[in-house]
Amino acid sequence: MGGGPAGLMLGRLLELRGIDSVILEARDRDYVQQRVRAGVLEQATMDLMDEVGLGARMHREGLVHEGVELRFDGEGHRIALSDLTGGRAITIYGQQEVVKDLIEARLASGLPLHFEVSDVRPDPETGVVTYTHAGEPHTLEADLIAGCDGFHGVCRSAIEEVLTVYERVYPFGWMGILAECAPSSEELIYAHHERGFALASMRSHAITRMYLQCEPDAEPWEDDAIWAELDRRFGMAVNRGPIFEKGVTPMRSFVVEPMQHGRLYLAGDAAHIVPPTGAKGLNTAMADVALLASSIGDDAKLAAYTQRALERVWRVQHFSWWMTSMLHRMSDDPFETQIQRSQLRYTVSSTAQATALAENYVGLPFITA
Amino acid sequence: MGGGPAGLMLGRLLELRGIDSVILEARDRDYVQQRVRAGVLEQATMDLMDEVGLGARMHREGLVHEGVELRFDGEGHRIALSDLTGGRAITIYGQQEVVKDLIEARLASGLPLHFEVSDVRPDPETGVVTYTHAGEPHTLEADLIAGCDGFHGVCRSAIEEVLTVYERVYPFGWMGILAECAPSSEELIYAHHERGFALASMRSHAITRMYLQCEPDAEPWEDDAIWAELDRRFGMAVNRGPIFEKGVTPMRSFVVEPMQHGRLYLAGDAAHIVPPTGAKGLNTAMADVALLASSIGDDAKLAAYTQRALERVWRVQHFSWWMTSMLHRMSDDPFETQIQRSQLRYTVSSTAQATALAENYVGLPFITA
Repeated sequence: MGGGPAGLMLGRLLELRGIDSVILEARDRDYVQQRVRAGVLEQATMDLMDEVGLGARMHREGLVHEGVELRFDGEGHRIALSDLTGGRAITIYGQQEVVKDLIEARLASGLPLHFEVSDVRPDPETGVVTYTHAGEPHTLEADLIAGCDGFHGVCRSAIEEVLTVYERVYPFGWMGILAECAPSSEELIYAHHERGFALASMRSHAITRMYLQCEPDAEPWEDDAIWAELDRRFGMAVNRGPIFEKGVTPMRSFVVEPMQHGRLYLAGDAAHIVPPTGAKGLNTAMADVALLASSIGDDAKLAAYTQRALERVWRVQHFSWWMTSMLHRMSDDPFETQIQRSQLRYTVSSTAQATALAENYVGLPFITA
Repeated sequence: MGGGPAGLMLGRLLELRGIDSVILEARDRDYVQQRVRAGVLEQATMDLMDEVGLGARMHREGLVHEGVELRFDGEGHRIALSDLTGGRAITIYGQQEVVKDLIEARLASGLPLHFEVSDVRPDPETGVVTYTHAGEPHTLEADLIAGCDGFHGVCRSAIEEVLTVYERVYPFGWMGILAECAPSSEELIYAHHERGFALASMRSHAITRMYLQCEPDAEPWEDDAIWAELDRRFGMAVNRGPIFEKGVTPMRSFVVEPMQHGRLYLAGDAAHIVPPTGAKGLNTAMADVALLASSIGDDAKLAAYTQRALERVWRVQHFSWWMTSMLHRMSDDPFETQIQRSQLRYTVSSTAQATALAENYVGLPFITA
């Protein structure tokens, strides 16, 4: 259920294991392929793309980064991700590019992938799924339903009476822009500033991606105001170009437990949301489906899916919360601000603490055994 | 000003540099020597005791620990402090023992140390200190006044109009006991439990020191209730013996800036308080006076005292806050509890994060250059 990166990757993994699947997606293909989301692939996500035979374009077009910068008190400090983690790295490659690669492979294989389906009703007990496609009602009888239909999908709501919800809503959002100009830095810059957090990222050598901490319900500012604030928070004149997309993302942490009920198994955003500070949303979805695919066909592993998935999910939740609370303006409490700054100074000066950041950022191994 | 460990150590350091000092203490000698406080010496504090020629009894009677245990979810996990920090360690040696060694040396040197002084009035501008001792008024004209008179002393209040205060009060306290029985474990145990934090420590092979997280304004419980709760939180039957001291300590973080004004320089608890979770109170006081002693006679270093001291103070504040917030029951928020448990699992399973804990726990170097 869901033709985003989690559903499509699960389909690919099942295809390679010779297990039949049908993928149902509410939106049309163009929408899914253009939906701008995450852009940082962990080492294990890169490895998974290779493993399913779809890494070629990622290696050709993606930008491998071996470090990130933390900037505060007017100075930048590089965290040498690869040096600190035995050579692991991240790749800048948009989620929509991953989706394009997976859709292309799915269509080439001739396996069912239906866009614009509606009235989807999964029955967790029987595995029966009813839905409408091209005006016609359909029924599937599945051994297993994978709920990869995102935070607003129908799968989680189908089992909500058995779920415990863990949630934190942060009192700020991210105002993001995409602009036609070269990135201002070769590597990502995470900036802590008294006026709020800022992130300098990129989609390519020609497309800049930038974010500013803002009020959670802010309307996107005028372009000039955005550029001026970016200059201020990074303490430099950033490259400017035409902004062709902007929007405000709320920030929350969210986890449900269990991630399974009857024949229904949740994966990715359907089960958990992280604030984007650790760049973990897409990667954690991939970790879930890698685990789920390796568990199908083994009742004991399927029974342990929630426990095994949540172990890694909570690691990612902690890391995302840590990065968020270390880097944002969290409150007006001057004690908290001093603690943040001491933590930042420590993180960039202690090899141990920098390694802890790096090993989480490039990502801990997926569980598939 | 103050005959606790900070004032006495500063006096010793000045003596070795041939600089005159007078130490004034409000309490009598017995009170000061019996005041039960911290009991964990960092590596640098141990080194400082050696450096001033007073390490002999500490090495004879103190217990060197090369690890501590973190316990949660019913299991203990050792943090190998010395293995992770190139051989650094901690020593269990009560603050009152340090004070006894310092007082004995001071008295042996014949240098002035006055107990039971009252009406102490330091003038930060002129360096003049007036006080009453044995019924007689006295006046000192000092080049420099060191305010080592603790959180409730007169020195900080003498300059409070120039101070910025950073503070956090935690919504819990520690109920501490001293009991006549062998410790239940060779090394300290920091336990995270859903009912609250507990710490198993010791004074010697025959005296146990234990703490329980409790309401901040709790009255000490009956002995039986304390032992039962200790068993519950540690998940084992702890050794029991007659309790000969018990009390409740509130938990707060507190820092003032600057730590100096005119001829007055604050050191130790007069300038900052940490929650005891990181065992940093006494050690940070020692770091302050080591820095101050090395700065006296050099105007540039004296001018930079606040900045240099606070750099280390905030590191210690962050570490103490981190240990406190990772280990205590902080709130009823289930998200926070899951984040804590994930952080604990990570800390005991990642060499990098365990090293970060260890290097802070054994203590970062004192600044004296």
